[in-house]
Amino acid sequence: SDNIVVISKALTSQFVIPEFKTFTDIIDTIYETCKDNDSGLPAQYIPQLARVDPSHWGVSICTIDGQRYDLGETSTPFCMQSVVKPLNYALTLNDLSSEVVHQYVGQEPSDKPHNPMINAGAIVTAGLLKKGLVIADRFDYAMDQFKRLSGQEHIAFNNSVYLSERATADRNFALGYYMRENKCFPPEADLVETLEFYFQLCSVEITAESGAVIAATLANGGICPTTGDRVLDSDAVRNTLSLMHSCGMYDYSGQFAFKVGLPAKSGVAGGVMLVVPNLMGIFTWSPPLDQWGNSSRGVQFCEELVGNFNFHNYDNLRHTSRKYDP
Amino acid sequence: SDNIVVISKALTSQFVIPEFKTFTDIIDTIYETCKDNDSGLPAQYIPQLARVDPSHWGVSICTIDGQRYDLGETSTPFCMQSVVKPLNYALTLNDLSSEVVHQYVGQEPSDKPHNPMINAGAIVTAGLLKKGLVIADRFDYAMDQFKRLSGQEHIAFNNSVYLSERATADRNFALGYYMRENKCFPPEADLVETLEFYFQLCSVEITAESGAVIAATLANGGICPTTGDRVLDSDAVRNTLSLMHSCGMYDYSGQFAFKVGLPAKSGVAGGVMLVVPNLMGIFTWSPPLDQWGNSSRGVQFCEELVGNFNFHNYDNLRHTSRKYDP
Amino acid sequence: SDNIVVISKALTSQFVIPEFKTFTDIIDTIYETCKDNDSGLPAQYIPQLARVDPSHWGVSICTIDGQRYDLGETSTPFCMQSVVKPLNYALTLNDLSSEVVHQYVGQEPSDKPHNPMINAGAIVTAGLLKKGLVIADRFDYAMDQFKRLSGQEHIAFNNSVYLSERATADRNFALGYYMRENKCFPPEADLVETLEFYFQLCSVEITAESGAVIAATLANGGICPTTGDRVLDSDAVRNTLSLMHSCGMYDYSGQFAFKVGLPAKSGVAGGVMLVVPNLMGIFTWSPPLDQWGNSSRGVQFCEELVGNFNFHNYDNLRHTSRKYDP
Amino acid sequence: SDNIVVISKALTSQFVIPEFKTFTDIIDTIYETCKDNDSGLPAQYIPQLARVDPSHWGVSICTIDGQRYDLGETSTPFCMQSVVKPLNYALTLNDLSSEVVHQYVGQEPSDKPHNPMINAGAIVTAGLLKKGLVIADRFDYAMDQFKRLSGQEHIAFNNSVYLSERATADRNFALGYYMRENKCFPPEADLVETLEFYFQLCSVEITAESGAVIAATLANGGICPTTGDRVLDSDAVRNTLSLMHSCGMYDYSGQFAFKVGLPAKSGVAGGVMLVVPNLMGIFTWSPPLDQWGNSSRGVQFCEELVGNFNFHNYDNLRHTSRKYDP
Repeated sequence: SDNIVVISKALTSQFVIPEFKTFTDIIDTIYETCKDNDSGLPAQYIPQLARVDPSHWGVSICTIDGQRYDLGETSTPFCMQSVVKPLNYALTLNDLSSEVVHQYVGQEPSDKPHNPMINAGAIVTAGLLKKGLVIADRFDYAMDQFKRLSGQEHIAFNNSVYLSERATADRNFALGYYMRENKCFPPEADLVETLEFYFQLCSVEITAESGAVIAATLANGGICPTTGDRVLDSDAVRNTLSLMHSCGMYDYSGQFAFKVGLPAKSGVAGGVMLVVPNLMGIFTWSPPLDQWGNSSRGVQFCEELVGNFNFHNYDNLRHTSRKYDP
Repeated sequence: SDNIVVISKALTSQFVIPEFKTFTDIIDTIYETCKDNDSGLPAQYIPQLARVDPSHWGVSICTIDGQRYDLGETSTPFCMQSVVKPLNYALTLNDLSSEVVHQYVGQEPSDKPHNPMINAGAIVTAGLLKKGLVIADRFDYAMDQFKRLSGQEHIAFNNSVYLSERATADRNFALGYYMRENKCFPPEADLVETLEFYFQLCSVEITAESGAVIAATLANGGICPTTGDRVLDSDAVRNTLSLMHSCGMYDYSGQFAFKVGLPAKSGVAGGVMLVVPNLMGIFTWSPPLDQWGNSSRGVQFCEELVGNFNFHNYDNLRHTSRKYDP
Repeated sequence: SDNIVVISKALTSQFVIPEFKTFTDIIDTIYETCKDNDSGLPAQYIPQLARVDPSHWGVSICTIDGQRYDLGETSTPFCMQSVVKPLNYALTLNDLSSEVVHQYVGQEPSDKPHNPMINAGAIVTAGLLKKGLVIADRFDYAMDQFKRLSGQEHIAFNNSVYLSERATADRNFALGYYMRENKCFPPEADLVETLEFYFQLCSVEITAESGAVIAATLANGGICPTTGDRVLDSDAVRNTLSLMHSCGMYDYSGQFAFKVGLPAKSGVAGGVMLVVPNLMGIFTWSPPLDQWGNSSRGVQFCEELVGNFNFHNYDNLRHTSRKYDP
Repeated sequence: SDNIVVISKALTSQFVIPEFKTFTDIIDTIYETCKDNDSGLPAQYIPQLARVDPSHWGVSICTIDGQRYDLGETSTPFCMQSVVKPLNYALTLNDLSSEVVHQYVGQEPSDKPHNPMINAGAIVTAGLLKKGLVIADRFDYAMDQFKRLSGQEHIAFNNSVYLSERATADRNFALGYYMRENKCFPPEADLVETLEFYFQLCSVEITAESGAVIAATLANGGICPTTGDRVLDSDAVRNTLSLMHSCGMYDYSGQFAFKVGLPAKSGVAGGVMLVVPNLMGIFTWSPPLDQWGNSSRGVQFCEELVGNFNFHNYDNLRHTSRKYDP
C-alpha cells in the first residue's frame, strides 16, 4: 500500500521534490566535482580506519516521501563513529524526559560537562540509554532502534573496530574518570561498562543508503519515510536537530552553521549525515578527513549543495529569489 | 497605496497571521506573566544605565505585512548597546562583499579575532563600516541606515551615555590594542577613532516600536515592511540571522538557540530584538539583566512565546502538531 | 663511635647550632603560637583522613650533626601522601641518570607533562622507580630506601588509606590515561599497576621524628646524620631541593619561596617537611589544611621560623645583621 | 682609602676569590666556548634592536670586594629593557614598605595581577615608584638611583629606542587598560603617563661593566662594592633576589632555577644580569635571543659557569666535593 501511495504521488507530481530528475542532475554534477577533491587522509589512530581505500565516495538521498537516489559506493558498510551521537541522544530523549537527560548533559560547554555531540557528553548519554537494563539488553535495544530509524536497512556491528577502539581509548578513559570525579554520571553507572558500551555504539555499521533513511527519519519529524514507523517523538527530534545544527561538525561547527545552515553530524570513518528538515536526508561517505576531522568530500558536498539549492536555514526569507527551489 | 494593500488583505484574511486577535490575546497573557518577574538588576557599570527604573516593560510586534501590536512602554527611548552589533554587521556586509568582511571577522572564536556579535568582532566591524569616509560622514551614514531599517521611526543619539561609555571603556581599549597588536584592523584604521565610533553606535537610541520594525525588516529579507524600502540585500540578512541564531545572547546563546531556536540579540540597556523569519519582528525592553547580561523579562518572553507558538526553528517538522500556528 | 663524635662535639661546642638551648627556647615559643591556630579542616575526601583529630600538633627537629628536639605528637604515625613525591624523585634520580628521568618529567608545567612535585609528574616518576623489577620488589626497594633515609626509624604501610585512596582515585586515573595518551610513560609501563604503586607510596607512614631525620638527610647532602649512611648522591639531592624550593607547597609555592625561601614539601595528611640546607631537617604534623591544601599550623611555623632566624635563602647576604643566627 | 683596603686585601689574599687568576682563566675558556654559539636572532620587533650586530659579546664581573674582570665588548652601551624590572622593584620596595608594594603586585601569577618580573607587574611597579612626584622628577629619581647602584658608572637614556617602543606598544597598552579595568593601579595613577614612564625605564642604557657593578650591589646586600654606598636596604634586596631566582628568565625561569640556581634577569636587548650572592655580580651582553627571549650566549654562559663552579644555590651542601670553589 505504501507503494501505491508513492506511485499515485508520482503520477500527480505531488512529491516534495516534484522535478526529481532536474534535482538529481545537479546532484550528479556536485558529486563529480567533489570526486576530484583528494585532500586529507583517513583517520590514522587505528589500523582498521587507516587502511581504508581513500577513493571511496558515495552519496545517498532519501526524501521524506520516500524518493531515493544513490551515487557511488552507497552499499559499502562503514562504522558510524560520532554519527551515532545524535542517534543515541535522540533515543535517550525519547525514552527519558528531556528534564532527566539535561540533568546530565548540557547545551553549552560551560555548564554541564558537555553537550551530547562531543565525546564527554556522548559518553554520559551512553550511560543513560536504558540504564535500568543489563548491558546486553541495552545493546540489543540500541540496535533495534537503529534498525527502525533506517527502515530495517543495513545495520551491523564491527567487532574489530570495537576492539581496536577500546584498546586505544586512553583519552576517553581519561574523560570518563574525570567526569566521574565531577559526579557527571548517574550514581549507579559502572564506568568501564559505560565506556565499553559507548565504543560499541561507535562501532555500529551502516551504509550511505541506510544512513540516508536515518537522516530522512529525522527530517520527517521522527517517522521513517520508507516504513511509516514513528520511531522518535517530535520533541526528541527537535532537540537533536538543534544540537546538530550548532555542534555537529567538531570545531568547524560554527562555520558550518554559518555557511550550510543545516543540522549535520560527521564521524571519523568518513560519514556525514545531513538533514534538510521537511525535505530529505542525505548521507555522504568518503574516508579522507580535513583538519577538523570531517570528511573533506562530505563537507564540500554540503557547501556545494547549499550553493545550488535554497536549503540554508535562512535561505527562504521572503524577497530572496536567486537560488533554485527543487 | 500601501494602506490599500493592508486593508485589502485584512478584508480577505490574507495576512501571515490571519487570526491576529487570537494571537495578541496570547501575547497579552505572556506579557502579564513576565511583568511579575522582577529578578535581576539594570546594568551597573555606568550611572546612566544604573539609575533607570527597573519596572519598565514594553513589547512591540511588527509582522512582515505591517500589522502592529504594542504593550507597555514601547515609545520610551533607550540605547541599543549590543543590539547595534547585528545591524552594524549587516550594513557592513551590505556595503562590502562578504569576502572582504570575513577577512577581518570570523564565525568562530578560534579563527579570526572574534565574530561580530561580541565586542572584539563588533569593534573590528565598526572599523570597516564606510571606512573610506571621514568619521562624521560614517556616523551620518549609519544613522540614515538605522532610520531606513526602522521605517523612519524613532532613532536618536544619547550623548551622555556615549561620554560615560567612553570614560569607562578600559576593557574595550584593552581589546582594541590587543587586536591591533594582532593585525586585526585594516592598515589605515585609526584605533581611537574606531573605538569612539563603536561607542557612538552603541549609544544610538531606539524605542521598542522602532526596534520591532527593524526586526521585521530582517524577518522580511531586508525590505522594510512599513515602507517597502529594500535596505539590505538578502545575503547580508541571511548571514546576520545565522550569527544572531548562534551568538546573539552572550554566554546563554547555546541554550537560547536550543530552547528558542530563533535569531535574537540582546543589549545591556535591556533590549531584546527577536526575529521570526518570514513572520514578524519582536522587540522587548526591560532593564533588569540576568546573570548573563540578557534582559530577564526579555528572555522569559522569548521562551514563553516559543512554548505557545510553533516558532522554534525545528518546530515545523512534519508530523508535529501540538503547538499553535497563529 | 658515632656517639663518641657527638659527645666530643658537645664538649667542645663544635655543633652547627652551638647554643642549642637558646635555639630550642625560641622553637618552644613558635610551637605554642602555632598551637593556637585552629583554622582549616583535615582533608575530607576519604574518611581515613577526615576523621583524624584536628588538634594533633607535633614538631621534630634533627640537625645535620645529629642533635634532636621534639615537641608535641612526634611519635604518632601518619601517611606521607605528597611528602613522598620528593623522596620518590630523589630515589629515581639516584638510580637512573638525571638525563633518563628528565626524558619523562620536566621542571616547568609547560614542557614535559609536569614536574615530579605534582600528581602528574609524581605518577610518571613512580612509573620509573626500579621499573625493571616486579611490583612487589619495587615496593620493597622503596620501603628499604625510606628506612635508610630515616636512619631506620618509623616507616610503615597504611593499607586502609591505600584502599581508600585507590577507591576514590578518579582524578588520578583520568590523569594517568590522559598521560598515557600523550606517551608520557615508558613503553613497557603498566598503567593500572603504576597508579596502584603510586597510591601505595602515598600511603607509607612516618612520624614527625622519622620525617625530621629524612629532612636532615636531604639537608646533609644525602648522608643520614644519625647513621652516616650515604643514601643519595649529592646531585640527586641538589635537584630534589631545587624542585622543592619552587614547587613544594601546591599553589602557594611561589609565595612560600618568596616568604620562607627554603625547600619544603607538604602532604594532605598534614605533614610539612622543611629542609634548612647544611643545618637541619624539620618535620611538622598537624592535620587541618588551609585553602591551598597545606597544613595551616605547618605553614605558620615555617613563616615564624624564618621571621626569627636567618634561614631564608637570601637572608645571609653580607651587611644584613638583624636576624638571629642560632 | 678604599684603594688601600683593596691593596691590603690583595697582599694578604683575603679576597672572596683568593685565586682570582685561576678563576678568570676558567672564565676565559667559558667566554670562548660561548662565542662560537651563533644561534638565535636579535629582537626583531623594533628596528633599533633588529639592526644590532649579532656578534657583540661581552662579559663583565665585579666581586663584592671590588675585583673586576672584563672580556669582549663590555663598554658598549645597550638598553636594559627587562633588566630594569628587578631594579625598579627593588627601588620601589626600598621607598615604600613591602606591605604597600604587595598590595599591588604579587609573587604568583594567580593572585595580584602579576609579579614585578613580567610586564603586567612591572608596569604596575613603575606606577608606584615615587608616585607622589611629577613625572620629570620621578625619572630623575630613577636615573640617580641607577647611578648609585652602578657606582656612578655608565647610565644613559636612549630616546630613539624609547620612541620606537612607545610606537609599537599595543600589547602593553592592552595590558595597561586591562589592568586599569581590574583596579590594579593606585587610584591617582595616570595610565598613559605610567606606560610612558615604564617605556622610558626600559630604554635606560647601561654597559656590561656598569651592569656588573649593579649586580654586585645586589650580591653585596645593597651596598655598592666600588663606592661603599648603601643604596638598598637588605629586605628589598632579599625580596628582589627571591623573585629573580624564580621568575627572571621568562618562560625558561623554572628550568633556569633548576639548572643554574641563581637569581638572574634577562632583557630583550641581549643583557643577562646574574647575581652570585655574597660573591659577585656578572653581566653578559649578546643580542641574539633564544626561543624564550633570553640571550643565547648569556644563558649558555650561566649554565657553563655553574657546571664549573659551586655557585648553584644547592651546590654547597655538605659532603659534595666535586666542583671547584674559586
